[in-house]
Amino acid sequence: MFMRIDHIGIACHDLEEKIEFFSRTFELTVVAREVNEEQGVKEAMLHIADGAGGGSYIQLLEPLSEDSPVGKFLARRGEGVHHVAFGVNDVADAMARINEKGVRLLDERPRHGSMNSRIAFLHPKDVGGMLTELVQASDSGKPSQNV
Amino acid sequence: MFMRIDHIGIACHDLEEKIEFFSRTFELTVVAREVNEEQGVKEAMLHIADGAGGGSYIQLLEPLSEDSPVGKFLARRGEGVHHVAFGVNDVADAMARINEKGVRLLDERPRHGSMNSRIAFLHPKDVGGMLTELVQASDSGKPSQNV
Repeated sequence: MFMRIDHIGIACHDLEEKIEFFSRTFELTVVAREVNEEQGVKEAMLHIADGAGGGSYIQLLEPLSEDSPVGKFLARRGEGVHHVAFGVNDVADAMARINEKGVRLLDERPRHGSMNSRIAFLHPKDVGGMLTELVQASDSGKPSQNV
Repeated sequence: MFMRIDHIGIACHDLEEKIEFFSRTFELTVVAREVNEEQGVKEAMLHIADGAGGGSYIQLLEPLSEDSPVGKFLARRGEGVHHVAFGVNDVADAMARINEKGVRLLDERPRHGSMNSRIAFLHPKDVGGMLTELVQASDSGKPSQNV
């Protein structure tokens, strides 16, 4: 079911500062920057490796407002790991198979994720306290140029 | 520097219960079980994928005592992501290069990690609130049999 660890989503106060830090310290390349109004974040993807069906990334997340999910997370927990995402071949199929096993889904249907992926979140209380995302990468794969 | 996301370390109260849950729900296979007295944990590695220089895993961690680092984490934060580990080719070299960039190391020298890896931890306050581990996988690779 899981083909790869797709990304670690890290909540931060200052996206540009953290992009600079992670790219410089760990020699990582930014391959995408986006604003996701639906999720209330601006974000960047730093490429680590290519894998089955997609890549592996560090995702940096800055909330667009204090009352967004990531804004509330920062107020409660401070900066750090917000969620973990696993790559799947077919997100709708994975959602159905996981839900059958008693895990609640936070999304009724797949929605838009980073780099034109299709994603869904699982309830953290049902997954050992870990906010868990399923990612079906875009057919177009990762961007070919740095941004 | 980072070749793969090596593992997500998840702190839990009951290792056997969580092994059963993660393996059944996400169709993952346990490839190693260990007790690490130095770190005060018993743990299991659930295989997700193979990658450059090693594999990608979910690591489940149950503390051996309440006053161990993972025991204190559980008391403070509850179950969830305890740390994130990245695969490197040479852990001593990576430690030196990262430390040169101003990130404090929690280990002065590499120590023993899961499946005979060599590991070191970075200070979470210097890495965006994320307890970060570097992993140089064992030459012998992952075990060939389930355990």
